[in-house]
Amino acid sequence: MSENKRKGLLIVLSAPSGCGKDTVLASLDGKIDNFRRSVSMTTRKKRDGETDGLDYYFVTPEYFLERLSRGQILEHTNYNGNYYGTPKTTVDEWLKNGDTVILKIEVEGAKNIRSLYPDSVSIFLVPPSMSSLEKRLRKRNSDSDEEIQSRLTIAQNEMKNAVNYDYIVVNDKLETAVEDICAIINAERHRTSRSKNIISEVISNA
Amino acid sequence: MSENKRKGLLIVLSAPSGCGKDTVLASLDGKIDNFRRSVSMTTRKKRDGETDGLDYYFVTPEYFLERLSRGQILEHTNYNGNYYGTPKTTVDEWLKNGDTVILKIEVEGAKNIRSLYPDSVSIFLVPPSMSSLEKRLRKRNSDSDEEIQSRLTIAQNEMKNAVNYDYIVVNDKLETAVEDICAIINAERHRTSRSKNIISEVISNA
Repeated sequence: MSENKRKGLLIVLSAPSGCGKDTVLASLDGKIDNFRRSVSMTTRKKRDGETDGLDYYFVTPEYFLERLSRGQILEHTNYNGNYYGTPKTTVDEWLKNGDTVILKIEVEGAKNIRSLYPDSVSIFLVPPSMSSLEKRLRKRNSDSDEEIQSRLTIAQNEMKNAVNYDYIVVNDKLETAVEDICAIINAERHRTSRSKNIISEVISNA
Repeated sequence: MSENKRKGLLIVLSAPSGCGKDTVLASLDGKIDNFRRSVSMTTRKKRDGETDGLDYYFVTPEYFLERLSRGQILEHTNYNGNYYGTPKTTVDEWLKNGDTVILKIEVEGAKNIRSLYPDSVSIFLVPPSMSSLEKRLRKRNSDSDEEIQSRLTIAQNEMKNAVNYDYIVVNDKLETAVEDICAIINAERHRTSRSKNIISEVISNA
């Protein structure tokens, strides 16, 4: 059974700011075969502990808009005054290769990706409660009170979009959330629409 | 987050005869929360190693037809000259309770269940190859050459129905197949359609 004959899988992951999606993403490394993380580009300020090229590509608005005007950005959105975009680089190549590609995208960007890739699978990560989200934002210590209130209001609005996603995962315990996402990826790899050729392989391997 | 507020999940599992679905099913015990296995009723002969009430309820054709005429069988089918049916007992009760219920059903019966329960999730288990299936059937040593040939032909026809199932899982290594099915169940538990109430819970837990 040649797994690599299977179609690639595009996963869209969204979460309110402060929900721990970067930690979840980092924990997926090494747990999934042929796993690719697409790194987004943003014009927002780098926070403590973030690495350029790993968490995001941190760029100037001028650079972002130039890349955009050249058609080098797959989708983009403006969130809380900053641009976020997906570089149109190797995503299609990875998918063609049968890889599992994960995109970390804000709610608006996710909508764009879903219409560009109807076969993609979308996951919305939520905090166990609004109070735990507030605690996490305060612990991060990088935002002012005003910014935290703004993020909480945005989070609440974003969560109303969760119904448009295929899956909802609660990030209460990190290991459980990571396990749930791995299960979703494993399950989706076995979707009949992605593994129809298996049947003809089994029958022909007489 | 109260998991038990989630809707129940009905899993339909089909596989060609000799594909090891009973071993897979037995291995699922203890791995899934609130897990219920529905035991089918059949008029076929009990094989060595099978237990009445665990693998199947082994009954006479007269008893089966009487239950059927009384409307006590949810769905039934005739396969290779024998009746197979799902007792209409506690399935709905389990689902209402939020449990994960698994039904082991032949291809025709699965069709019936899918139309009775459109929200159900169907998994088709396949052998890695036809030759490995033949080996397993011969190893079982309970069927004549003629019966084995008949089973292989039926298996090949049944596998053409796999495209109508939601998922296809290859039973090459038992542990991997069990892991895949657990992943599918875990993933489906997180489907937005089954966990919409989570969002309102998160938002209201201010």
